[in-house]
Amino acid sequence: MINKAGRDIPEELLVNGKEVFQGQYYYHDKVYTKASPTVRAIMKPEEEKLVPTLREAIEKSGLKDGMTISFHHHFRDGDYVVNMVVETIAEMGIKDITICASSLGDAHNPIVKHIESGIITGIQTSGVRGRIGETISHGKLKNPAIIRSHGGRVRAIEAGDVHIDVAFIGAPTSDAYGNARGKGGKSDCGVLSYSMVDSKYADKVVVITDTLVDFPNFPPSIQQVDVDYVVVVDEVGNPKKIANALLRFTENPRELMIAEYAAKALANTKYFVDGFSFQTGGGGPSLAVTRFLKPFMVEKDIKMGFAIGGITRPMVELMKEGLIKTIVDAQDFDLDSIASVNTNPRHFEISTSQYANPLNKGAFVNKLDFVILGALEVDTDFNVNVVVGSDGVLRGAPGGHVDTAAGAKCTIIVAPLLRSRIPTICDRVTSVTTPGESVDIVVTEYGIAINPRRQDLIDSLKDIDVPVWTIEKLKEEAYRLVGRPEEVQFEDKVVAMVEYRDGTIIDVVRKVKEFEF
Amino acid sequence: MINKAGRDIPEELLVNGKEVFQGQYYYHDKVYTKASPTVRAIMKPEEEKLVPTLREAIEKSGLKDGMTISFHHHFRDGDYVVNMVVETIAEMGIKDITICASSLGDAHNPIVKHIESGIITGIQTSGVRGRIGETISHGKLKNPAIIRSHGGRVRAIEAGDVHIDVAFIGAPTSDAYGNARGKGGKSDCGVLSYSMVDSKYADKVVVITDTLVDFPNFPPSIQQVDVDYVVVVDEVGNPKKIANALLRFTENPRELMIAEYAAKALANTKYFVDGFSFQTGGGGPSLAVTRFLKPFMVEKDIKMGFAIGGITRPMVELMKEGLIKTIVDAQDFDLDSIASVNTNPRHFEISTSQYANPLNKGAFVNKLDFVILGALEVDTDFNVNVVVGSDGVLRGAPGGHVDTAAGAKCTIIVAPLLRSRIPTICDRVTSVTTPGESVDIVVTEYGIAINPRRQDLIDSLKDIDVPVWTIEKLKEEAYRLVGRPEEVQFEDKVVAMVEYRDGTIIDVVRKVKEFEF
Repeated sequence: MINKAGRDIPEELLVNGKEVFQGQYYYHDKVYTKASPTVRAIMKPEEEKLVPTLREAIEKSGLKDGMTISFHHHFRDGDYVVNMVVETIAEMGIKDITICASSLGDAHNPIVKHIESGIITGIQTSGVRGRIGETISHGKLKNPAIIRSHGGRVRAIEAGDVHIDVAFIGAPTSDAYGNARGKGGKSDCGVLSYSMVDSKYADKVVVITDTLVDFPNFPPSIQQVDVDYVVVVDEVGNPKKIANALLRFTENPRELMIAEYAAKALANTKYFVDGFSFQTGGGGPSLAVTRFLKPFMVEKDIKMGFAIGGITRPMVELMKEGLIKTIVDAQDFDLDSIASVNTNPRHFEISTSQYANPLNKGAFVNKLDFVILGALEVDTDFNVNVVVGSDGVLRGAPGGHVDTAAGAKCTIIVAPLLRSRIPTICDRVTSVTTPGESVDIVVTEYGIAINPRRQDLIDSLKDIDVPVWTIEKLKEEAYRLVGRPEEVQFEDKVVAMVEYRDGTIIDVVRKVKEFEF
Repeated sequence: MINKAGRDIPEELLVNGKEVFQGQYYYHDKVYTKASPTVRAIMKPEEEKLVPTLREAIEKSGLKDGMTISFHHHFRDGDYVVNMVVETIAEMGIKDITICASSLGDAHNPIVKHIESGIITGIQTSGVRGRIGETISHGKLKNPAIIRSHGGRVRAIEAGDVHIDVAFIGAPTSDAYGNARGKGGKSDCGVLSYSMVDSKYADKVVVITDTLVDFPNFPPSIQQVDVDYVVVVDEVGNPKKIANALLRFTENPRELMIAEYAAKALANTKYFVDGFSFQTGGGGPSLAVTRFLKPFMVEKDIKMGFAIGGITRPMVELMKEGLIKTIVDAQDFDLDSIASVNTNPRHFEISTSQYANPLNKGAFVNKLDFVILGALEVDTDFNVNVVVGSDGVLRGAPGGHVDTAAGAKCTIIVAPLLRSRIPTICDRVTSVTTPGESVDIVVTEYGIAINPRRQDLIDSLKDIDVPVWTIEKLKEEAYRLVGRPEEVQFEDKVVAMVEYRDGTIIDVVRKVKEFEF
């Protein structure tokens, strides 16, 4: 069945009420009953939660073949928890496990062998980078992976699409009764936003920490009332590895030009007024927009009402300079943002449900004025791909892309026209992550293109000091420079479903074609 | 059927799995599936939540005959919200409504007429003071009231014993998207702990505020993701009326003697060590214990690890003096505690679920060393009544009594031996609120009695500078002074069920006998 993003979704995936993508607000007004966990009451004051080893905690949790476990990715490339848990599960002989992670990355390459051996048979995640992405794309995961945005993941949990049997939560600090924080300790990651929903909806919750502190560890990100067991290990993560290449501070002239164009466009819309709200995704040009925005804010005496999302140093600096009133934070991308959420009284941790769940009673993304987002590809329908590489292999993450694009009044995609002689702007993206109806402006180093659905923006930006193109013209320029790209070859087998944030299927990813040499 | 507190519970109440009380930890280890709300998704950024009038909010909420609504009592005697909502419901012609309130008091006398007319047909509450208590005791509420402790109320909501159709949450401040706080504005009540669970489990949530503030109103007690509508009214409450006679600062010599005895007993137990935890209930002698405790703390260089519960000035002062490390706060009983939770970084708001839900994975009361509680009556089995007056009329509130008594390592009841020539210590309490197995020490102005179940306490307190009696001797002394009290006369009709915190029935309250004159 062809969905509203123009993608063909195999009928056999449309079971148990699953629908294809039908537009960004299709489920607005939807009435449904939330999921809930099955819990065990702890009434007796003498019952303790500290368990000497991870293995004993897993035994006590009742984890069995076929169950689903969950993780957060606040430690990003410095995470030790996923590998430690999966390794222990493998040692215990448990198999057929589904991982429901907020994201997976290079840090988790060691679990590939457990995918290949059938210990891990399902993966639900935002990010599918590194060897895990390759493994899935080569058809080695038993069940199709499910790729979800951050808002889509909490939706799936809160709506009961996925039920977490055991949540494993790596925590920089915890007390012995399970009050856990992203702050303090030796592996400070700032916030634990992704795990908050896991702690409320998983049947069993195991907190894994390397720094046990006095009771009560307050204010807690994860509350004792939701935690079954606490385990102390040597190290849960390496915060120095939180910031990776995605979060670099670009000095690339082409990326700086893109950022400057984006800032100029943004500052000329009607939403750029005192109290505006703002988010940038990862990636050099996105992050650089914040730097170019500042002179416009100072010149017009405009302060940001709130900044949201993954937080990075440029945001923290703007706040220190008094240019941002409030930061609401679902993830810290560097040590500066971690320091800020620990100290600045107007820098707050929020759950991913507050951040982006499309089916609660109104997430923060609904209140966004601007979001600046990257892209692997953008097509002439303004569809964006951030999940599949130009070689057809899973190597990205929808993250908050889909959620913020749907919520923001002005969604700006920043991307170079070409990457290594491959057009970013193209006829048809390899995979749709964010539908074109959520995208308002595409910015390249050649100029910008505005979605024709937004005549208001076309009108207000017609005289700005930035080249304005149609998206077709941008694509033609790209094709003129490097030629039309060859289509990636796929086999029939579906290796991953890309869910829209509301749970409908916006695209599928197929096995990459294995060539014989 | 006779329950474990020795009370006869009518068989006809034992339907739908309802059980009689069978001991304080009977449901320890109980495995059950939590309840959940049926919600309506708000995906579209342009949808707003502000509604011009309370009546329109009620209309939009879909409130109908037979439904259940909920309220908090943080404004105590200064609450305006319950009356305002019930009056509007009455005007709209809706009837057969059940109120699930955290407590009701004198402020709510105006709703009596709506009980008598059948607009309100069910009441579930902790407190049943003032005219509402009389009305129920005289059999004028259609269905038996359900009296629950604070922990029992959240348990009932989280376990699905009661389903709230519409929660009405009076909030000192809110933004237009429903982020609501107990702090700020013109009716500052400090915390909104009782409403947190309502906001998560009610189908519809209406925030009623008198002070609309900029988005985002952070950190929120009630989160936008759980709120359907926001209404602005002139005034939600009068914080000056939060402190009432229950919370007076006693100078009564008899009460001071009781407090001094209690402090001496407490300070001589093995639990009085650095880092101990502590709560006092309302009532002059309970609150006065904190004052007498201070010299012992200073002398032995002992600091309190955490104080919890309803918070009052004496606690706030101890914290200011550096004698309390952390306050976890589920209710502010006076203006000093409201000021403290707004300003002291180690004074935290917690939900009532964190405070006392017996069937979550471990509430704060489980970590209590000491609790000091009042009593209307204590019997020779150490059962305590705080709900029914000596005239048989509902006039009290279990509050956190039952919860903290079950959780604390040392539960101390403070009460005068006599009140207006009526023995407080008696053969058999008029109604059991807290079972004797939860009570360790009873303190009167004549001396203390220790529960024989606690031989360890009997041993460690045998040489203290306070008269130590048996509970029978205390009772005999009371009866010797004023004679054996006459038994209250009741009719057969059950007007209220007193639930133990785990949902079992610990007692029933019957209609008081109407005498003809």
